[in-house]
Amino acid sequence: MSSKRSSQYHQVEIPPPQPFLKSLKNTLNDILFADDPFRRIRNESKTSKKIELGLRHVFPILEWARGYNLEYLKSDVISGITIASLAIPQGISYAQLANLPPILGLYSSLVPPLVYAVMGSSRDLAVGTVAVASLLTAAMLGKEVNAVKNPKLYLHLAFTATFFAGLMQTCLGLLRLGFVVEILSHAAIVGFMGGAATVVCLQQLKGLLGLHHFTHSTDIVSVLRSIFSQSHMWRWESGVLGCCFLVFLLTTKYISKKRPKLFWISAMSPLVSVILGTLFLYFLHAHFHDIQIIGELKKGINPPSITHLVFTSPYVMLALKIGMITGVIALAEGIAVGRSFAMYKNYNIDGNKEMIAFGMMNILGSFSSCYLTTGPFSRSAVNYNAGCKTALSNVVMAVAVAVTLLFLTPLFFYTPLVVLSSIIITAMLSLVDYEAAIHLWRLDKFDFFVCLSAYLGVVFGTIEIGLILSVGVSVMRLVLFVGRPKIYVMGNIQNTEIFRNIEHYPQAITLSSLLILHIDGPIYFANSSYLRDRIGRWIDEEEDKLRTRGEINLQYIVLDMSAVGNIDTSGISMLEELNKFMGRRELKLVIANPGAEVMKKLSKSNFIESIGKERIYLTVAEAVAACDFMLHTAKPDSPVPESNNV
Amino acid sequence: MSSKRSSQYHQVEIPPPQPFLKSLKNTLNDILFADDPFRRIRNESKTSKKIELGLRHVFPILEWARGYNLEYLKSDVISGITIASLAIPQGISYAQLANLPPILGLYSSLVPPLVYAVMGSSRDLAVGTVAVASLLTAAMLGKEVNAVKNPKLYLHLAFTATFFAGLMQTCLGLLRLGFVVEILSHAAIVGFMGGAATVVCLQQLKGLLGLHHFTHSTDIVSVLRSIFSQSHMWRWESGVLGCCFLVFLLTTKYISKKRPKLFWISAMSPLVSVILGTLFLYFLHAHFHDIQIIGELKKGINPPSITHLVFTSPYVMLALKIGMITGVIALAEGIAVGRSFAMYKNYNIDGNKEMIAFGMMNILGSFSSCYLTTGPFSRSAVNYNAGCKTALSNVVMAVAVAVTLLFLTPLFFYTPLVVLSSIIITAMLSLVDYEAAIHLWRLDKFDFFVCLSAYLGVVFGTIEIGLILSVGVSVMRLVLFVGRPKIYVMGNIQNTEIFRNIEHYPQAITLSSLLILHIDGPIYFANSSYLRDRIGRWIDEEEDKLRTRGEINLQYIVLDMSAVGNIDTSGISMLEELNKFMGRRELKLVIANPGAEVMKKLSKSNFIESIGKERIYLTVAEAVAACDFMLHTAKPDSPVPESNNV
Repeated sequence: MSSKRSSQYHQVEIPPPQPFLKSLKNTLNDILFADDPFRRIRNESKTSKKIELGLRHVFPILEWARGYNLEYLKSDVISGITIASLAIPQGISYAQLANLPPILGLYSSLVPPLVYAVMGSSRDLAVGTVAVASLLTAAMLGKEVNAVKNPKLYLHLAFTATFFAGLMQTCLGLLRLGFVVEILSHAAIVGFMGGAATVVCLQQLKGLLGLHHFTHSTDIVSVLRSIFSQSHMWRWESGVLGCCFLVFLLTTKYISKKRPKLFWISAMSPLVSVILGTLFLYFLHAHFHDIQIIGELKKGINPPSITHLVFTSPYVMLALKIGMITGVIALAEGIAVGRSFAMYKNYNIDGNKEMIAFGMMNILGSFSSCYLTTGPFSRSAVNYNAGCKTALSNVVMAVAVAVTLLFLTPLFFYTPLVVLSSIIITAMLSLVDYEAAIHLWRLDKFDFFVCLSAYLGVVFGTIEIGLILSVGVSVMRLVLFVGRPKIYVMGNIQNTEIFRNIEHYPQAITLSSLLILHIDGPIYFANSSYLRDRIGRWIDEEEDKLRTRGEINLQYIVLDMSAVGNIDTSGISMLEELNKFMGRRELKLVIANPGAEVMKKLSKSNFIESIGKERIYLTVAEAVAACDFMLHTAKPDSPVPESNNV
Repeated sequence: MSSKRSSQYHQVEIPPPQPFLKSLKNTLNDILFADDPFRRIRNESKTSKKIELGLRHVFPILEWARGYNLEYLKSDVISGITIASLAIPQGISYAQLANLPPILGLYSSLVPPLVYAVMGSSRDLAVGTVAVASLLTAAMLGKEVNAVKNPKLYLHLAFTATFFAGLMQTCLGLLRLGFVVEILSHAAIVGFMGGAATVVCLQQLKGLLGLHHFTHSTDIVSVLRSIFSQSHMWRWESGVLGCCFLVFLLTTKYISKKRPKLFWISAMSPLVSVILGTLFLYFLHAHFHDIQIIGELKKGINPPSITHLVFTSPYVMLALKIGMITGVIALAEGIAVGRSFAMYKNYNIDGNKEMIAFGMMNILGSFSSCYLTTGPFSRSAVNYNAGCKTALSNVVMAVAVAVTLLFLTPLFFYTPLVVLSSIIITAMLSLVDYEAAIHLWRLDKFDFFVCLSAYLGVVFGTIEIGLILSVGVSVMRLVLFVGRPKIYVMGNIQNTEIFRNIEHYPQAITLSSLLILHIDGPIYFANSSYLRDRIGRWIDEEEDKLRTRGEINLQYIVLDMSAVGNIDTSGISMLEELNKFMGRRELKLVIANPGAEVMKKLSKSNFIESIGKERIYLTVAEAVAACDFMLHTAKPDSPVPESNNV
């Protein structure tokens, strides 16, 4: 380290001043266009080509349709039919879960997939309704409007909520506010989804036990209460039937899990159980009239519903709220799913573009009797395993569903609800991802805490409470990071000019008479007084240590600013305060490696003048060398390096 | 740089594992006891001494009483009387502002100062009521309870609010949650105080124009409307009188500002103008019966009010809310004032201890007919200039006020309200600190934005809106910092092993075929997908650049993690994704200088295994040297260093 002692040091430069508007523009550009989506278009010279690229950007179908071939078609048809066989029973079940007419589940698997096939950029996503959003609709809407007493209003509000959700999703995409979805951290989603799945399963007890009346609230306490309060109403027939199908479904799922090649077994099993259940009741309903059935499903494809959207009723705000919340959750799931499959197949997905696709598909959906749809994981996984090549598989599914709607709906008359319940439960169980939770605990306690609070919030409170909790705790973490940055003492790694945290590198050696502190975060109003106190404490402790050792006392405090990304006015006045405070104690403040932003502000605020330009160094090594040098020129007795024993 | 090429590199160590509870304890200790207030007590061996130190810690009076001497007493008496002469008229004025009986202003300058003298740790703070809190009480309480129609309830709720404020302050102090106050950044306070002062001045127009009816809302629009709507009610007499006194007060203030030695002129002027105004009306009230006067003030010191606290009425939540808000604002001002004067005189103040002192003084105040008090800047400045030595000056002031209460209250019968108005305006004008605002603009645009939004929020909305705005915007900044960390390209500063931002150091040179990116912040869920996109964009741009130059293409991406303070599970999965993504593009990901926290998590998550331990280096220089070395062993043609022209 002594090598540097006599040589001269490198200047820390003050970055060239930038006009305010220019820097603002750069910042916004960085924030909103991080992935620079229009590069290809910009780089293109010919206008015609520009337009073509633009169109392809908006409608990815133009991208993949050109390279399309027969072999693709084969695999897309197969996977399309496979997901259709899953979509039909699932759609009906989730519509039931949302307290909406079952037929809506089928409608929602017709129009939105077609829209997505044109606008979506994922090749593996299979579009459809999701359990959580369905339950959320039922829970939030059911509180205000009774689905049984006032089905019409309930239905129309569901459409309106879907419309608002789509509108918001489109806007987020157009304004490139994709990061709004980021507010839901991975940990939060794990906890939230797990909680929602638990709640959904609890709801299914109604179907399994063949109960007619059930609580509107979703928390575990009131659900269990309402179940055991009417134990005399339990119907053993539906219970037994349900358990049989549950066992069947879980077994098939288990098999497919063990043997991914046999994915189609679990993919087909819901349809199979619907058929079996229906046949069973068709022949024996006389004996089992206690088992509830779907009943009449009217024929024909989606009727238009654009005229049913309500923007005047007192409930419009409610619809807006539901749309917002369900919309964001749907986005979070859909985009996550799209991303993860894109990872497997090595292609990229533009979150903002996806949002627009989802948004359009919900807006047009709300015009054609559909409720909220997104890219559910279960269905997309099946689609992927079935070997889909492009979004065409969604079209195939839509066609299959259309055929069903036109000709086959009467067949569902005798389908027992309890089968649907067991289908839902099977789908939900895989969402309770306790392994992920354990992983979180091992890796990051705070993330586990986020996950747990989300889960408990959903299960014991409401879905909204769970959502608010998870977001709140996650954001608290960010604020806490900035509010309480780490400060640690640095030591020199022998025979190098490298300085590191002495707790991380215990062999690093510290010099008596100078203390090197590394600030591990920005200096903002929220942490400046904390930093002042904490640095003061470091100094006290160091001086005590030296005093007990009877060594010469502290002379220089080197602040390593390498990790100080930014500083605000409160931060600067803190530094000035600190400088004064050190002056009082005959300590000299030295600053190492301030970044561009920090250096700019320090110079603007004349802090540099006040401590002197010669107190600012480019690296810790140079700062230390300089202090060391001054110490020696100051007086003969040199501070001997001593291995730290903190 | 080539020096390193052949030598071996330093290990990045995985920090020794720490039991969860231990690390939790350390973290909490760091967060809550940053300044380690009990060090002296802990280091003391003898129990008796421990207790004594403990008592001194709680009651600072024990600290300074011992060293007290006659000369101290002299200066304390002088400054005490000086601030009393300011406290009496100010107290009455602010009580008026709060729509409370004027006498409360005097009560509030009697008990709280005595409490603070015992428990407070500042030597310069002068305790009393403040305009902003008074106005806030009037505004928030006035909305629900009419002070004229229902004065009793209004008064009792004011006491209750004070009690709650004190309770909260004490709790914050005891729980060492001092940082709650930090949420108000310096910029926010400047804007908020300025706005509040503007609003207070506007309120005074009522007194100046001698209006009887006035709007309850505080925003500039409705105030001006209510003034010009009743222009026929304006009283020129009070207007003229008020302006005279305003001129007088401002002149004295100006003199004292020019000549700090003459501080007493501005300190005395309020009392002088009260006396003059009173005499004037005493002799001429027959002719000027239009000018409103204080009227009857009942003799005697503070009556107990503990029985008047209401915890049952429907308004208790309102009182709680008011207590919370005014309490926090009062704390922010009081502590800031105490700190700044402590800086001048080189002594330290424990924020949490101060909070307990403020809290106790408000609790006991609410028991003895006082409303919210704190350490107002104006009064404390006078105290400081008058050369106070200890908190005894507060006691002297209290005695002077007590004498006034016992014998002199009748003298205030003829005091014209308009004088009080001009006193308030004079006090407020100094709070509109436009210079500070300009300074903010010069230094930090975002802070200026915070300041401005706070100001406008208060002036055009309500004081609460202003408060919420300022806090909201400030917190948004923190989240934005974490949400959108800077990423920049690093270059090598010639003939050194130092790597820096090439925009900050344009002479730094980059190597073709490797790209060094510095991530300037933690990697959290809120920014991981942004970082992924942004890094991808950097790579694209670099490759385009190389392609146009016809150079060999990119091979290594070095991520400098020096400034990555922490990483969560979303961040880790982002890194894994990034690694895969680079693998696809035949790029190698190399990591330089991960901190302890990051290294711990990377190893736990097996990320290190997945990219290989040899891809992690202690410094950027070593990482670059290693890549360089591999490039050369790989193939002969060496990448020539080229000065960057970004």
